[in-house]
Amino acid sequence: MIPTPYLLFLGDAPDPLAAKVAQGIKDWRPDNAVGQLRLEGCKADLGLPDMTLAEARAAGAQTLVIGVANRGGVISQTWKKVLVTALEEGFDLASGLHNLLRDEEDLAAVAQATGRRLHDVRVPSVKYPIANGEKRTGKRVLAVGTDCSVGKMYTSLAMDLEMKKRGLNSSFRATGQTGILITGNGVPLDAVVADFMAGAVEWLTPDNVADHWDHIEGQGSLFHVSYSGVTMALIHGGQPDALILSHEPTRAHMRGLPGYALPSLEALRDTALPLARVANPACEIVGISVNTAAMGEDEALSYLAQVEARMGLPAADPFRQGAARLVDALLAL
Amino acid sequence: MIPTPYLLFLGDAPDPLAAKVAQGIKDWRPDNAVGQLRLEGCKADLGLPDMTLAEARAAGAQTLVIGVANRGGVISQTWKKVLVTALEEGFDLASGLHNLLRDEEDLAAVAQATGRRLHDVRVPSVKYPIANGEKRTGKRVLAVGTDCSVGKMYTSLAMDLEMKKRGLNSSFRATGQTGILITGNGVPLDAVVADFMAGAVEWLTPDNVADHWDHIEGQGSLFHVSYSGVTMALIHGGQPDALILSHEPTRAHMRGLPGYALPSLEALRDTALPLARVANPACEIVGISVNTAAMGEDEALSYLAQVEARMGLPAADPFRQGAARLVDALLAL
Repeated sequence: MIPTPYLLFLGDAPDPLAAKVAQGIKDWRPDNAVGQLRLEGCKADLGLPDMTLAEARAAGAQTLVIGVANRGGVISQTWKKVLVTALEEGFDLASGLHNLLRDEEDLAAVAQATGRRLHDVRVPSVKYPIANGEKRTGKRVLAVGTDCSVGKMYTSLAMDLEMKKRGLNSSFRATGQTGILITGNGVPLDAVVADFMAGAVEWLTPDNVADHWDHIEGQGSLFHVSYSGVTMALIHGGQPDALILSHEPTRAHMRGLPGYALPSLEALRDTALPLARVANPACEIVGISVNTAAMGEDEALSYLAQVEARMGLPAADPFRQGAARLVDALLAL
Repeated sequence: MIPTPYLLFLGDAPDPLAAKVAQGIKDWRPDNAVGQLRLEGCKADLGLPDMTLAEARAAGAQTLVIGVANRGGVISQTWKKVLVTALEEGFDLASGLHNLLRDEEDLAAVAQATGRRLHDVRVPSVKYPIANGEKRTGKRVLAVGTDCSVGKMYTSLAMDLEMKKRGLNSSFRATGQTGILITGNGVPLDAVVADFMAGAVEWLTPDNVADHWDHIEGQGSLFHVSYSGVTMALIHGGQPDALILSHEPTRAHMRGLPGYALPSLEALRDTALPLARVANPACEIVGISVNTAAMGEDEALSYLAQVEARMGLPAADPFRQGAARLVDALLAL
């Protein structure tokens, strides 16, 4: 639907996490990312070639993807000049921001004049039902985190990839803009109207054959007061058979909430599992995914071994180590 | 904002619970309800005079309020004829349904032709912020239920009324269409976009003087898989100092979910309190409100005494008995 390959726009990202949309595309669809475009003050770097719009066009890029998220999702004036020029130079634009491309009069006008398209992947394109809670066939696994942005999507993408490598029956189900930009479809859950959140997740993960696993992309955290309602809807709408606990061990406080400490993995386990069993009494926690990107190799392996012993569950960093052990644990259910 | 008094439209309500919007207006603003209008097959009865549109107009009614909820919020063709006639006879229309009056072309056309207004109280009229989780001044109490429609709104309205009678500083904060139709303002929380739910609750219950209590209207249930995300956002956005557990003891299964049993009050307590303490570590459960409408007096009193002994908390039916004991428990915090 969105023409590829992409030039990834990192804007004036205040830190690497702010560019997680672009990072996700680069990590999971590297063939689709020809380069990055950064503005002055940008604190993110994907390790892709820095390109001007003209250079990226010459390298074949079809779409400029806004790969950076601002709190509240505002398209700043600093960005506007680049986006207008991109349309004029022949790019489509794609974005998962709350602030829609189509709602910016100047962008809409230039897009119409140049015949380019504005792809707002955040906008739900479906009238979702209210959740009915009925048991669905097939299997589902959901990653739940101690915080936002701790690696839930990576965990699901890595487990899906590992299962596909083994010839198993598996789908990644995107619930956020990055996932949708990576896979081309999904539910932009944080833009769904409250009453329909759980129903949208049911719609996204329908009945399937008995040996099929849906890897549902997690959102937010039960312990993040800004977004916990979205997480709750995923747990009940997804009716997972298995949960993965996801954690980032170097975080000083909940993302964006300086007054809030992260919960322990034990607290996450003891909170998430009873809630999941409301929708699926057979649900089990099968493993722990740890984002050890901020740790050296020895420190990471030592931390994982300690968590595994403490929690009595396989613990792995699926990005650093692959998802084989987490998939083994899932299949052992 | 909405012209009063009202004629309450009960339509073809399949059961009394379906008319809870009308019941709420009749119970809490009886002076605003001149009568009820029922269609063939209506299973609800508020005990108000049954009136034709003409009779209600003669009695002074200014607005026909759709006081009945359908699953999914659809305006049926059966209703349409009455609504069109009402506009022609001089009524405004008010509704809290998902399916907006303004989106029905025939209603919009007749309203324009007759100069009448369509009041869709479900539509958010404010651009809500993302929740920041910062501690607010003043005090807040939230009712959380074992199920939907167990009396959470009644509990909050009754506690607010009791505090006002005592000359205390108190507000009812509406989060649903009935509450908004009763009080004239609030947040239609189940129509808010997911990312902004908790922020909308923060907006609804801002900083206040130290002795002021907000009685926040609850929604859904942590144990109702269709709506639990909305409940979660209320618990974290509301950052309540006190929770009331709400229960309806004769319910055979979760409302609308035949496969789901109600949780115990103990399970509700053990689930809701740790989640509330994420946002407000000082939160306490202060009492239990039981909707005993389906019980006789002796049975109700006996049940309440048993719950009180079992749970070690004051248990009362605020509609049957008033909210004095629940308010006492709140003020003892």
